[in-house]
Amino acid sequence: MHDKTMRAAPTVNGLDMQAATATIAALKANPELAQFQFRARNKWIDGGVNISTIRDFYGAGREDDSRATDFTFTNGEPPVLLGNNEGANPVEFLLHALAGCVTTTTVLHAAARGITIFELSTELEGEIDVQGLLGLDDSVSPGYREIRIKMHIEADCSDEDLDELLAFTPAHSPVCTTVCRPVPVKVERVR
Amino acid sequence: MHDKTMRAAPTVNGLDMQAATATIAALKANPELAQFQFRARNKWIDGGVNISTIRDFYGAGREDDSRATDFTFTNGEPPVLLGNNEGANPVEFLLHALAGCVTTTTVLHAAARGITIFELSTELEGEIDVQGLLGLDDSVSPGYREIRIKMHIEADCSDEDLDELLAFTPAHSPVCTTVCRPVPVKVERVR
Repeated sequence: MHDKTMRAAPTVNGLDMQAATATIAALKANPELAQFQFRARNKWIDGGVNISTIRDFYGAGREDDSRATDFTFTNGEPPVLLGNNEGANPVEFLLHALAGCVTTTTVLHAAARGITIFELSTELEGEIDVQGLLGLDDSVSPGYREIRIKMHIEADCSDEDLDELLAFTPAHSPVCTTVCRPVPVKVERVR
Repeated sequence: MHDKTMRAAPTVNGLDMQAATATIAALKANPELAQFQFRARNKWIDGGVNISTIRDFYGAGREDDSRATDFTFTNGEPPVLLGNNEGANPVEFLLHALAGCVTTTTVLHAAARGITIFELSTELEGEIDVQGLLGLDDSVSPGYREIRIKMHIEADCSDEDLDELLAFTPAHSPVCTTVCRPVPVKVERVR
């Protein structure tokens, strides 16, 4: 992860607090630096199998060039959804994204409050009625009805401090707010 | 993917249409079979790094046991977001989930209409203002402002058929509707 031997930066929860403080000062001075654009490319293979490639993004005023190689991820489906478990399926990847974002947002804001986290793990579950996907019942939404996150967290603070932190965190998590608020998705066909 | 040598099932777009038809008939007879619960477990490692484990789910009236091993995925962050590119980050995994779901939903409903797809690829992009994540400006939503999907698709049908298909597809994709409609996320602290 971060190289603790290279410099003696004070870290809280594995985050370089000097870098974090510098970043926040820079964003306050120039909010344009806070504008990010993330991207993914995806190619259909067959049936319920498709592969995403993720690498470049724009942020902090420039195109990022920190990644030497692409990240690639495979969506698949289980047999009961006509696949052969070629990968996790898209609605499961959504849970992974949500778990990670709520976790990182919690770790970040804990560090900002001077809270050291010892352990943090989550379990997520959500229900989907596939009649929506299949178009069998227009009254059924194809998406998750709700998603529940059970979080186990141990830290050097009181239960009240943790409850206050967790009241703040989901509302500041980019993935969580993308899920719990309506975000427009526009599909355009291109040649 | 599917084993074409084992049985001579007619496939469209890599989907076993006999199995698809049987599934839809079963769901129409017993809508309880359409109820799925998906799950993920996640463990924080350090800083912006955490790992999800995905395997079990409930669907079609039973606990699934088709997966011999866990899927594991690592969230990380790029240096500009205080990480070392240990993995794609959660908002990028969300784009992967969305790309996959819109693709699979399109492939499925194309098959149902008898449309053979030759090629399907997508490019996704979305903007995030990290002032929201950092709590620097309460008027800024931490999530994506909007997500745009450019889809390249080649199939054995007219442009009008494709436009009609793509007008139907996003509104029936579980991930797309989870993003574009408000879905409650509940975080509960457990011991």
